[in-house]
Amino acid sequence: MTVHTGYTVKQERAQGKHLLSPPLPRLTQSFEQNGEAKYEVIVVGGGPAGMMLTLLLARYGLDETSLLCIDNNESGQSSGHADAFQPRTLEVLKSLGLADDIINAGYQLWETAVWDPSPTQKNVIEHTAVNPLISTAARYPFNLALHLSKIEPFIENDLLRYHKQGIQRGARLSDVKISDDPGFPVEAIIEDKGQRRTVRSKYLVGADGAHSSVRRCMELQLEGDSLGYIWGVIDLIVETDFPDIRRPSFIHSSTGSVLVIPREQVESGEYLTRLYVQTPEKVNTWDTQETTKAKRNGFTLENILQYAAAAFRPFKISPKPHGGVYWWAVYEISQRMLSHFTVADSAGTPRVFFVGDACHVHSPMAGQGMNVSMMDSYNLAWKLMYSINGLTPKASSKSLLDSYHTERYPIAKQLMQFDRVTALMASGKVTAARDSNGNTLTSEDFIDNFKEGSAFMSGCGIEYQESIAVQITADNNNPISGTDYASGILRPGRRLLNVKLRREADGSPRDLHDSFQSSGRFRILVLASSDLLDPQGTSSQTLKYLTESLLPSYAPSTIEMVAVHPGLPSRLNLNALPSRVKQYCEMSFYDGSKIDDAYQIFGVDNKRGVLAVVRPDGYVGVVAELGDVGRIDDYLQKCVQRLPLLGVMV
Amino acid sequence: MTVHTGYTVKQERAQGKHLLSPPLPRLTQSFEQNGEAKYEVIVVGGGPAGMMLTLLLARYGLDETSLLCIDNNESGQSSGHADAFQPRTLEVLKSLGLADDIINAGYQLWETAVWDPSPTQKNVIEHTAVNPLISTAARYPFNLALHLSKIEPFIENDLLRYHKQGIQRGARLSDVKISDDPGFPVEAIIEDKGQRRTVRSKYLVGADGAHSSVRRCMELQLEGDSLGYIWGVIDLIVETDFPDIRRPSFIHSSTGSVLVIPREQVESGEYLTRLYVQTPEKVNTWDTQETTKAKRNGFTLENILQYAAAAFRPFKISPKPHGGVYWWAVYEISQRMLSHFTVADSAGTPRVFFVGDACHVHSPMAGQGMNVSMMDSYNLAWKLMYSINGLTPKASSKSLLDSYHTERYPIAKQLMQFDRVTALMASGKVTAARDSNGNTLTSEDFIDNFKEGSAFMSGCGIEYQESIAVQITADNNNPISGTDYASGILRPGRRLLNVKLRREADGSPRDLHDSFQSSGRFRILVLASSDLLDPQGTSSQTLKYLTESLLPSYAPSTIEMVAVHPGLPSRLNLNALPSRVKQYCEMSFYDGSKIDDAYQIFGVDNKRGVLAVVRPDGYVGVVAELGDVGRIDDYLQKCVQRLPLLGVMV
Repeated sequence: MTVHTGYTVKQERAQGKHLLSPPLPRLTQSFEQNGEAKYEVIVVGGGPAGMMLTLLLARYGLDETSLLCIDNNESGQSSGHADAFQPRTLEVLKSLGLADDIINAGYQLWETAVWDPSPTQKNVIEHTAVNPLISTAARYPFNLALHLSKIEPFIENDLLRYHKQGIQRGARLSDVKISDDPGFPVEAIIEDKGQRRTVRSKYLVGADGAHSSVRRCMELQLEGDSLGYIWGVIDLIVETDFPDIRRPSFIHSSTGSVLVIPREQVESGEYLTRLYVQTPEKVNTWDTQETTKAKRNGFTLENILQYAAAAFRPFKISPKPHGGVYWWAVYEISQRMLSHFTVADSAGTPRVFFVGDACHVHSPMAGQGMNVSMMDSYNLAWKLMYSINGLTPKASSKSLLDSYHTERYPIAKQLMQFDRVTALMASGKVTAARDSNGNTLTSEDFIDNFKEGSAFMSGCGIEYQESIAVQITADNNNPISGTDYASGILRPGRRLLNVKLRREADGSPRDLHDSFQSSGRFRILVLASSDLLDPQGTSSQTLKYLTESLLPSYAPSTIEMVAVHPGLPSRLNLNALPSRVKQYCEMSFYDGSKIDDAYQIFGVDNKRGVLAVVRPDGYVGVVAELGDVGRIDDYLQKCVQRLPLLGVMV
Repeated sequence: MTVHTGYTVKQERAQGKHLLSPPLPRLTQSFEQNGEAKYEVIVVGGGPAGMMLTLLLARYGLDETSLLCIDNNESGQSSGHADAFQPRTLEVLKSLGLADDIINAGYQLWETAVWDPSPTQKNVIEHTAVNPLISTAARYPFNLALHLSKIEPFIENDLLRYHKQGIQRGARLSDVKISDDPGFPVEAIIEDKGQRRTVRSKYLVGADGAHSSVRRCMELQLEGDSLGYIWGVIDLIVETDFPDIRRPSFIHSSTGSVLVIPREQVESGEYLTRLYVQTPEKVNTWDTQETTKAKRNGFTLENILQYAAAAFRPFKISPKPHGGVYWWAVYEISQRMLSHFTVADSAGTPRVFFVGDACHVHSPMAGQGMNVSMMDSYNLAWKLMYSINGLTPKASSKSLLDSYHTERYPIAKQLMQFDRVTALMASGKVTAARDSNGNTLTSEDFIDNFKEGSAFMSGCGIEYQESIAVQITADNNNPISGTDYASGILRPGRRLLNVKLRREADGSPRDLHDSFQSSGRFRILVLASSDLLDPQGTSSQTLKYLTESLLPSYAPSTIEMVAVHPGLPSRLNLNALPSRVKQYCEMSFYDGSKIDDAYQIFGVDNKRGVLAVVRPDGYVGVVAELGDVGRIDDYLQKCVQRLPLLGVMV
């Protein structure tokens, strides 16, 4: 190519920011620090929950002048040992543009194996079953094992693109109070390199883990109890002839249980394995504190390895010689949580929030901790931001903030219940057949519990209760057929399932989720009816109302639109639809009959179509008949502030 | 979780390096600079070709003390405007762990549209066809549009993980000579901030583009000619009602041709479009240099936009007002290349190499430039490295280096030919029907040319000729059936197609390519026969020979093994196979009957199986009958240095 003339009007710059995350519009006055020590939000704790919250708020538009995240750990090296992402967490990371790097670095868990005591041979185990690990429909139908220390840099590097300071490390919270100040009622005292300073904020979030300082300052306590079981956990490079060493395996032996979690490669190219190993010791309710402590501290690495070796018989298992063990610990299984996840000011508005281990702790075996913690933050972030930016009508702001507790508390409660049952089952003896009293546990019981819990464990099966942001559909008026929500049937309170569809504009196969990025926007999802091309039909009229009346009445870009048609006899020409449809969804208009069948998966009759609103966190807020734009209008008007009418402005 | 005891034996660190790229073993003496200005390799030019080469060499093991890459551009801001990756380039980027970020940032092109003059209405165009853009089997069956300035940071950031200096910018090559020095025969003079210094190296690579200084210093010239056609090119945000604006579209109008290439989003969220626009001007062979220049410089942006607007009729197209045009240029279509891509020392060993535009330039329309350039480097890098590290037997080293020219020159030649035909066809008038003499071009001709060229254009259809690294299979001895190589039939000289298979160890669905990362290793691919579990069968005997005799005779990790079985009645227990199979391929043993049917796709009879060696760049080097380990042995012994026999060492 020989270029002979030309000039550059604009130089495109290579900047790392995620293109699809422009900050949210702000209807309130912009925040200025003015030299005072005040912020809009203070996040205490920079672990997975705190980092996720800080990243989301920064992407939505809070920069280092209005958002502070502190962590008392100087080094930034995590002491946590979380190591698995659920499918739902991966979906959320994908919606932030962060999943691929993390998936590439991690190890995918697809199948699970169960081994039980042999019914014919004494003291050896026998293969019982291999099942898929995830049985819920999901964009990523696997768990991903990766050490927290490898996950955090991906999130923190991204945070630094939006927030210059990132996480301020080595700063410790020493006190928090809520005052009557109407603007910045939260007063926190922070110690940083021996200096104490008082900072004020609108909101403060305790993301500071099981030993939360925020919780202590608010004089709150976790409630719950211990099951008494003592387990060991080891990360190691194994030498073994156990055939399922690369599948998550539940081993029930006559001497105790072991849970195998295969993990990612280390730098040598070898693969890590995590073993959860049951010990024969149990703490009793009548044990003194000292007896308890002695029981827990009585174990050595060698003990744990011996229990493991006994459970694996007839197979051999041992650490690779010379440095094969990376980490080990002993813990007692317990479940504890806060009875309320927010603390309100005197006017009843929540000002202090708890996320993650600061409000719920449990055993690590089911790999839930980091996931539920990050999803707490994911639920909270947009609600905080909508309140701060005035994107929620004033009258609804308190309700929206309250919905953090009403939505996340029941999930934590379920988590405690699931963890308790799993721990009991894992710690109980499994026999080949139920005994005459029906009291002992069989392998089938174990597998059944696992299958029942699978939707919850995947993070994809959770359902939020009715609130300002979730409007349940009355049965007599439900345009959706089907109740198998785990397979994708549309349901207010559940996340919209990803489907693969062909985009009209360019014929590219796309994941529908890629039109639902985590940029803080509400979206109207239109599944048009088959009469789409009839200008007098319901679809056309609805599209006309949405694009000409509803959407223009909100701040530009707060509400987006995604449209799907049920297959048409020829290529769809957007010029044939109401004129502003192209403006709102040229690049988010899909053929719902190609690749996946969106209508069938979502439970929608393609002659009737459907309307839905999807919240900024991907959960369906409301579902309505295609022609029932009033229902959509009502829902949105409660959640999102409309622009003042032009007449009023003039 | 309450942790009561435990200690960390090793702290895992979060480091960005790609786990699967440990440096290659080095059998030669390690390189030490000793304060002298000398390197093992100097790369001149840090554009796509030079950056790719530097990255590969750095990953294979050359650090900043032995590898220098200079670029005369101070800012590092690329002046090139390459903007599309082919499927094969994406496969290679994936094998380096770089594809996902680039794909996420880019725009995928899946379908192409053709518009022709209406046979019934004057001066308007009419829709003719929509076809898939890529018709060759490929892991990524689409092209990816993304501006070079957004691509380079991904590659350069990765380079800095392996090479502290990265690309040394603002340094200019002023001379190169090849001397008789046996160790460091290449002598280069580099000017850096006014300072001239002489540096010596073993090899020097000219990756410095169309106006290559290396080429000038070597007194070589590009050969070829111009077709005379003058085209304009514009990057802009369009306002249009043209229905295929988001598909690559060939528009043949009665006033001239336009090629539409949709591109990625810019920061505003809007999508860029590139238009290649035919002008009515043509340079004639008899034109003086001044006339030619005047013709080329006679065009303004407004002219080009007018030609485009005329070709789009009846549709409207114009740049978005106020800054809608990002860049534009005018160019004359020509094809020129070097007659030899290497320059040898007096002993005949190639010492100076040319890659990319330094040895072949052509028109930009088909989006080939950056791809062929990067693939030049991908072909060269491992050959250089095997010579430097002594991984090639001394007797073969020259042949392996020579194969760079013998493999890449014919590809460049094909590229010139393809570009010439495409340019002629794009610049010719298309009529609805062939005229009575059969001379004019119809839309069918155009589509046919495009389809024929598709395999080449995708980068997946190229085939290297016989050389030390490609051993062609004689017909009477070919274990492979089928000749549809574009669909994946195994063939020496072609790249191994990716297939999706289930891994035995963990049941995870995997891309076979993920066991063929670009880490510089040769790999033996074993497609076992159905008698795999018979210890006396060919499969078992072959696996035994490979793992107990062949592989141990090479430096550890130079040659890897990947195995596939044709489906077995029950789960494969690796313990049932020869004992060292697990050591070499526990994590690279696949069920070739699940997800894709590997045997059918590769053209292998599952009763017979097959052996193949795949080169470090993913091309099949040799194919043999499953039992014919001698053929594999012969091939490898030529390409890869064996360890000295133990007896000899003692």
